[in-house]
Amino acid sequence: MDARMNICAMNASTMSASDFTVWMSAQQAQVEARLSRWVPAEVPAGLGEAMRYAVLDGGKRLRPLLVLAACEAVAGHAEAALRAACAVELIHAYSLVHDDMPCMDNDVLRRGKPTVHVRYGQAMALLAGDALQALAFELLTPAVDTDANVPAAMQAHLCGLLARAAGADGMAGGQAIDLASVGQRLNEAELRHMHELKTGALLQTSVRMGVACGLDVPAQVAAALGDYGAALGLAFQVVDDVLDVTADSAVLGKTAGKDAAADKPTYVSVLGLQASQNLAAQLSAQAHRALDASGLPQVAHLRALADWVVNRTH
Amino acid sequence: MDARMNICAMNASTMSASDFTVWMSAQQAQVEARLSRWVPAEVPAGLGEAMRYAVLDGGKRLRPLLVLAACEAVAGHAEAALRAACAVELIHAYSLVHDDMPCMDNDVLRRGKPTVHVRYGQAMALLAGDALQALAFELLTPAVDTDANVPAAMQAHLCGLLARAAGADGMAGGQAIDLASVGQRLNEAELRHMHELKTGALLQTSVRMGVACGLDVPAQVAAALGDYGAALGLAFQVVDDVLDVTADSAVLGKTAGKDAAADKPTYVSVLGLQASQNLAAQLSAQAHRALDASGLPQVAHLRALADWVVNRTH
Repeated sequence: MDARMNICAMNASTMSASDFTVWMSAQQAQVEARLSRWVPAEVPAGLGEAMRYAVLDGGKRLRPLLVLAACEAVAGHAEAALRAACAVELIHAYSLVHDDMPCMDNDVLRRGKPTVHVRYGQAMALLAGDALQALAFELLTPAVDTDANVPAAMQAHLCGLLARAAGADGMAGGQAIDLASVGQRLNEAELRHMHELKTGALLQTSVRMGVACGLDVPAQVAAALGDYGAALGLAFQVVDDVLDVTADSAVLGKTAGKDAAADKPTYVSVLGLQASQNLAAQLSAQAHRALDASGLPQVAHLRALADWVVNRTH
Repeated sequence: MDARMNICAMNASTMSASDFTVWMSAQQAQVEARLSRWVPAEVPAGLGEAMRYAVLDGGKRLRPLLVLAACEAVAGHAEAALRAACAVELIHAYSLVHDDMPCMDNDVLRRGKPTVHVRYGQAMALLAGDALQALAFELLTPAVDTDANVPAAMQAHLCGLLARAAGADGMAGGQAIDLASVGQRLNEAELRHMHELKTGALLQTSVRMGVACGLDVPAQVAAALGDYGAALGLAFQVVDDVLDVTADSAVLGKTAGKDAAADKPTYVSVLGLQASQNLAAQLSAQAHRALDASGLPQVAHLRALADWVVNRTH
C-alpha cells in the first residue's frame, strides 16, 4: 500500500490510514489462511499443487475485502462472508489461469511468477482453473450440520449471485467481447459494457455477496451498496487502463503497455488519458455518494476501499 | 437405441421395452427443450452460439435421465429435477469441450461433428466451457419468487452435490489422474479410483441430485440409491473401455481404439476383455440389488437405465 492511498483513506472517512492498514492486513491474513485450508493440497496427480499455486500468496485480495467490508456494513454472518470472500477469489484466480493460457493472452508472468501453464503445463492449467471454479461453489455450500452453520437460503443466494457474475452474462461474457474487440474501435458505451461484464460483474457481486450475508437487509440499502459496487467496479477498470500507460512494469508487476501493444481498446485509447483520470475520480465520487445513500453507519472500510481502487499505483 | 437394449429393459423390470422407449424419448425431449431455453443464444461475441453448439442436440443425456428417474423414484420436485438434469448435463458438456482441446485429448470430432475448438477456436472453447460450468449453478438457483419455486435448502443441497462431483475430488481430479496415467501401468484399484472420480462421480451424483429433489427421503433409501449410482457409474466406464475395443468407429460415433492408441490404461488392458465384460455384468447386478434394497416401488426406469448402460453398443 502506498503513501498516497493512506492519505486518501484518511480524507475519505473518519478512520485513520493506519486503522485501515491494520484492518486490511488482518482481513488479508484471514482470507489467506482460509484459502490455504480450503484449497486442497491432497488432491491427486498434482492438481492440488497447481490449484494452490494459482491462488495462494497472490494479489491484493480486493474482491474478498469488498465482501468482508460489505458484510461488516450490514452486520452480516461472518463465516458466510469468509466463505464468500474465498469463493469469489477462487473465481477470480481461475479466470486469471485460463486468461493467461496461450490460446488467450499467452502471458508467462503473473505477480512476478511463471504463470500456471508455464509451470505445470497447459492441460493442468486448464484443469486447475476448472477445479477452482467448482471449489468456489463447494465453499459456498457447507453441509448444514457443520460448524459453518450458514443458513441454506443464504447459501443458495450466494451461489446464484456468484454463478451469474462468473458466467455468460458476466465475466465469461465480458472476456468473449474482449476477444472479439482486438483491433476494433469501440465507442465508450461499448467499452463500458465490456468492462461491466469482464471485471465489473465480479467486483460488484463481491459487494452484493457481502450484503447477502446480512439478514433482512432493506431493499434500498442493498440497492445503494449495489450502486457502490458498480461504480467501484468500473473505476477499477478505468484505473487499470490508466496504469497500463502511466506505470512501469516493475511497479505494476505485469507488463505495462500490454493492452496498447495487443491493440485492445482501453479507456485511454477511447477517451484519452486526462479524461480517463477524470472519469475515475467521478466514479469514485459516485461510489461515495452511494454509501451516503445507504444510510449505513459502518461503511468506513468500503469508503477506504473505493479510494484505494482509484489511488493505487499497481 | 438398439434392439438388444430393449430386450434387456424388458427382462429387467415389469415395464415393457416400448414403455421405456416412450419414457426416455419424452424425457430427452423435455431436457432438450429446457437446455435450448436456458443456454442463451443472446450472449455477446459468439459465446452463446459456442455454448449452444457444445450442448444442444447431442448425446444420450444419460445423466439427465438418471436425475429424472431418481427423482421419480422418490416422488420429488419435478421442476428442481429438470433444472438438476440440465445442470449436470452442462457440467458434462463443458468437460467434453475442455477435454477435446489440443492441450488435452486433441479431438477434432465429437458426436460426428467438429469439436468446439475446431469450429470456434480454442479461446472460445475455453470460455464456452467456463461459462457452461457457471450456468449449471445458475440453473440450480432460480430466484425464490419465480415460477420455479424450488426451496432454498434444495437449491443449496443441489449446488453442493454438483460442485463436489465436478471438482478436484470428482471429475477434475479424475482427469488429472488420467493425464498422469498415460503410459503408466495401473492396477485395478488405481484404475477404479481414477474412473470413480473421472466419470463415476458425475454419474453417481446425477442419481443423488434426483434423490435430493425429494423431501424427507429416509437415509437408508438415499444410501441405497447412492450405491446404485456408484455401481452404474463404474459399469458405464467398464463398458466404455470394452466398446473402445469391440465397436467400430461408425457405431461408436468417435474414434474406436483411441485409448489403446494413446497408451491409456483401460479395464480391457488391465483385466482383459472377458473379465471386463464379466465385471460389467457384476456391476449391473449390483445396481439392481441396490434398487431392491431401496424398497422403493417406482424404480423401473432406474432398472432400465442400468441395463441400458451395460448393454449399449455405443
